[in-house]
Amino acid sequence: MKIIIVGASGTIGKHVTAALQNDHEVIKVGSKSGDLQVDISSPDSIENLYKQAGQFDALINVSGDGHFGPLTSMKDADFRIGVESKLMGQVNLVLIGQHFINPKGSFTLTSGSLAEDPIVLGANLSAVNAAVNGFVKGAAIELENGVRINTVAPTVVEESPAYFPFFPGQTPVTMQRVTQAYVKSVLGAQTGQVYFVL
Amino acid sequence: MKIIIVGASGTIGKHVTAALQNDHEVIKVGSKSGDLQVDISSPDSIENLYKQAGQFDALINVSGDGHFGPLTSMKDADFRIGVESKLMGQVNLVLIGQHFINPKGSFTLTSGSLAEDPIVLGANLSAVNAAVNGFVKGAAIELENGVRINTVAPTVVEESPAYFPFFPGQTPVTMQRVTQAYVKSVLGAQTGQVYFVL
Repeated sequence: MKIIIVGASGTIGKHVTAALQNDHEVIKVGSKSGDLQVDISSPDSIENLYKQAGQFDALINVSGDGHFGPLTSMKDADFRIGVESKLMGQVNLVLIGQHFINPKGSFTLTSGSLAEDPIVLGANLSAVNAAVNGFVKGAAIELENGVRINTVAPTVVEESPAYFPFFPGQTPVTMQRVTQAYVKSVLGAQTGQVYFVL
Repeated sequence: MKIIIVGASGTIGKHVTAALQNDHEVIKVGSKSGDLQVDISSPDSIENLYKQAGQFDALINVSGDGHFGPLTSMKDADFRIGVESKLMGQVNLVLIGQHFINPKGSFTLTSGSLAEDPIVLGANLSAVNAAVNGFVKGAAIELENGVRINTVAPTVVEESPAYFPFFPGQTPVTMQRVTQAYVKSVLGAQTGQVYFVL
């Protein structure tokens, strides 16, 4: 299987890449590193990525920024950080990628637990993660040629201790469990699913 | 109670207005009609609305557009219709309005059932409605001075027969039930809730 992993060198991406690269042809994509580069906030850059990568069987995205900060001082421009990157970036990876993906291929996006389980400073990510979850449910029933789409929605992961103080009382999840959710999406047969890893 | 209703002349808005205007001071807002006007896709226009309206106790938004069309031909610009209007419009009504609302006031937004129950042609609205639901959950735990926030998420309503063919097998909901969800949000004491009307 030919698998494109956007964000392959990131905290989660490096584990997902390691889990899949022995048995599959993995194309590692980063904003600056990797086999190919993309700026997911730019539809032109995404189109260019797919043209360079050629037809593929699976797209995994483990990249995308959001704004983390207090609601009381949040502005339109702050909120748009997550909208442009984690929301529109992932939406455009699918809208454009649907024209390059092989039949029975799959898209696996990344949202997060804040969609349903908010924390202080997380309103932008609650919205953006929820939007990705909703998009996956809507897109799943329209993608053609048996193409599937799911998203993985983890809480804070064990390798991101800098975030622990912002998730009081939350037990971080292991990279193993998060990684396996991506593997389940790519190698399984489900579609329209939000795989919460909590 | 001083209640600002954005979209007061719309299909849902006129019922919500009728339900509240006898017992409360209602300021009707429209894009072109009403006591005051606003373009919710413009933060400057929203700021101007609040400056004209003055301090208030409740903001109800029953306006906001989304894109309705096939995923296979959907483009970035199509998807942004919902992002700019129904998502960022409502987010900015809250981000800006939090600095004008009275203590113990409330924001009541509008999302929709497609967030969880998708239909063909509805991927943009599934994403945008879900985003609003997520935002409400995130914002609810940060709004200060006892200010609350909820959203109403109706399925297709009885007064929109043009949409019935796009909701096969869906029993339309009565305007009465939808209207009462807004009343519940404004006059009740809950926060962070998504009131599905299905």
